[in-house]
Amino acid sequence: MKQSELFTKTIKEDPKDEISTSAKLLIRAGFIDKLAAGIYSFLPLGLRVLRKIENIIREEMKEISGQEILMPALHPKEAWLPTGRWEITEMFKTKSRSGREYGLGWTHEEVVTPLVKKYVSSYKDLPRYVYQIQDKFRDELRPKSGLLRTKEFIMKDLYSFHATTEDLDDYYEKVTKAYFKIFERCELLDFTYLTLASGGAFSRYSDEFQTTAPAGEDTIYICTNCDRAINKEIKGEAAVCPECDGKDFKQEKSIEVGNIFKLGSRYSEPLGLKFKDKDGQEKPVMMGCYGLGPARIMGTIVEIFHDNQGIIWPQVVAPFKVHLILLGEEKDKKEANKLYENLRKANLEVLYDDRDVSAGEKFVDADLIGCPYRIVISKKTLAKDSIEIKKRGNDKIELVKTSNVIKELKK
Amino acid sequence: MKQSELFTKTIKEDPKDEISTSAKLLIRAGFIDKLAAGIYSFLPLGLRVLRKIENIIREEMKEISGQEILMPALHPKEAWLPTGRWEITEMFKTKSRSGREYGLGWTHEEVVTPLVKKYVSSYKDLPRYVYQIQDKFRDELRPKSGLLRTKEFIMKDLYSFHATTEDLDDYYEKVTKAYFKIFERCELLDFTYLTLASGGAFSRYSDEFQTTAPAGEDTIYICTNCDRAINKEIKGEAAVCPECDGKDFKQEKSIEVGNIFKLGSRYSEPLGLKFKDKDGQEKPVMMGCYGLGPARIMGTIVEIFHDNQGIIWPQVVAPFKVHLILLGEEKDKKEANKLYENLRKANLEVLYDDRDVSAGEKFVDADLIGCPYRIVISKKTLAKDSIEIKKRGNDKIELVKTSNVIKELKK
Repeated sequence: MKQSELFTKTIKEDPKDEISTSAKLLIRAGFIDKLAAGIYSFLPLGLRVLRKIENIIREEMKEISGQEILMPALHPKEAWLPTGRWEITEMFKTKSRSGREYGLGWTHEEVVTPLVKKYVSSYKDLPRYVYQIQDKFRDELRPKSGLLRTKEFIMKDLYSFHATTEDLDDYYEKVTKAYFKIFERCELLDFTYLTLASGGAFSRYSDEFQTTAPAGEDTIYICTNCDRAINKEIKGEAAVCPECDGKDFKQEKSIEVGNIFKLGSRYSEPLGLKFKDKDGQEKPVMMGCYGLGPARIMGTIVEIFHDNQGIIWPQVVAPFKVHLILLGEEKDKKEANKLYENLRKANLEVLYDDRDVSAGEKFVDADLIGCPYRIVISKKTLAKDSIEIKKRGNDKIELVKTSNVIKELKK
Repeated sequence: MKQSELFTKTIKEDPKDEISTSAKLLIRAGFIDKLAAGIYSFLPLGLRVLRKIENIIREEMKEISGQEILMPALHPKEAWLPTGRWEITEMFKTKSRSGREYGLGWTHEEVVTPLVKKYVSSYKDLPRYVYQIQDKFRDELRPKSGLLRTKEFIMKDLYSFHATTEDLDDYYEKVTKAYFKIFERCELLDFTYLTLASGGAFSRYSDEFQTTAPAGEDTIYICTNCDRAINKEIKGEAAVCPECDGKDFKQEKSIEVGNIFKLGSRYSEPLGLKFKDKDGQEKPVMMGCYGLGPARIMGTIVEIFHDNQGIIWPQVVAPFKVHLILLGEEKDKKEANKLYENLRKANLEVLYDDRDVSAGEKFVDADLIGCPYRIVISKKTLAKDSIEIKKRGNDKIELVKTSNVIKELKK
């Protein structure tokens, strides 16, 4: 994409109403825009990153047999009565002109369970795994960390349905592995810990995936022996490591990037999701639910991968792999345009800074936006049939023959 | 995908609470599920169709330089005050625990205009084209036509920003062509008419894209001379064809599948979106907005392409191109599995009916679901090293050598 056509521009000053580093950088670089506290728009650069994270998630959901669906955000009150969760104050509520009451979904057990009930009646219909990547709403009292905690948020929610608790336990392990795979692909693995936590409105306990970062709103205790962690909120009841019984922990600030729950029959019973087992006996379906926030992952990546100049995107989620910068005059533009077309033909994602602004401004913007490779083409480099390549986050500048650029970038 | 793993099943009986043919068929075949009046879930088959329509739209938006973004659904009341549209009764409203009021977006001028204002100040920054494919909400009093009119709906909304009305007019023409291209690709072109209509809450007049179908809630008058149409709602004020001044019309029921508006300065003025022109003079930005409903298009396609047995998907939006049906015994399954893998390796999208149910049931389901090609593999066909191919909506069954299947299907 040509930067001259991009409708966003970078912003020099930090936004006054943001505390977190990720929100400041993402807004300044033109990835997101704040509409109101806890409510953001994703701009062209930001949407590209978000979609890449979503696609990584989709691929890993497919690996564990997840079937993608899309449920609505507007839920009739009646759907929420059987479980008693209509009363939860974090749910936004609204009313139609005809007086019907609705809640805005912050989770989907109350919708997905009756849906699956329409198609499941026998043990032969189990197990089933359905997920969506969908817009959710939660009335947060103090959203203050950019994409890390918002009133409207995109969520991947997977629900699993089983005949036995053993089968649920097995699948829960599979999801845990799939989540770690996702964090590995997003380059968050080294910072992410499986953390025993409260189950909130879902179950007694849950497992959170917590990524350590100073901006985190959570505090976790990481077992120094085995890396399993415990959320501070339950440290009173869980004094030893649930994995190895270890007693030594280090305390860290962290961001909850995922949360998984063994629901058992907690929702299938009130919502009447039963099945007939091999003996013809009727039993409640065992359920699990598994949440993940693509936008929160995006914010977390920026919390971890940045420096004073801006964002340093891991290649796999970067908006563009290459930031091509033209310095100099009109006659060099022809060469730059040619290179841009060749890179694109080679299936490299390129942001091409063809704007009529100073070299300094272009370099500052490239560092702020944070694409993995910065390529400079100028009179000076053209004289040597070359371009300059610099990796973001690395000071070394390499002069590479123009004919070798694609090979170099595809390494 | 193996049909034995698909979590939905077909339903024999028509749903009691649906009037429109498309809703009945889409629910029975397992493409969508109704949560409440005007509120639907997209199930695995349905989401595949929806995504294909969305991708066609994305490709055509890219052709007219549209930049994709994603704006929120939750809008603070303050955003809607300058234009006076906070009062519109179709907008769902909600309140946070801290007493702040929000509306659920049914359009996005009030959000996109202040957003674009942050990046546009000079004629050099114009024109700009931004769009999203996003979830919208409208408090419809009597939603009764399945996906054709819902309270929550996916919409592609494009907004254009121009320095002059001439530039807006030019782009409006481009969008008109892009829309016809989209309807052509969805095989709706022969039934779709550019229709002069009221501008509603947006402008004096607008142009609708109306697809003729008995289930349509609109009535249009189509000029018998040039095919331009007029919506019945403004037939009083517009007595002659706006294209050719013709006076002969045929009346048809139709579905509004798209609507485009020249907003001019109607929203840029109250929302303060101005630019400095070449002479340094400050002027309001000229705007256009362009809506399209991917789910409504899906419903419209089914209204047009179906028979008594079920849906007949145009190939380009079909959930799967091929419905592979195995008839017979366990030992033939090996051959069917092999064929399934080979078709997939050839990048053909295949729904593979590997279930242990009767031939009759499989054929009925295949007709209901409506994939373009039905392929049958059985003891009988295997004896001839062949399979049977039948096109949906066509009675002819062809026996094709197994080795030629892929070539035949790729034609």
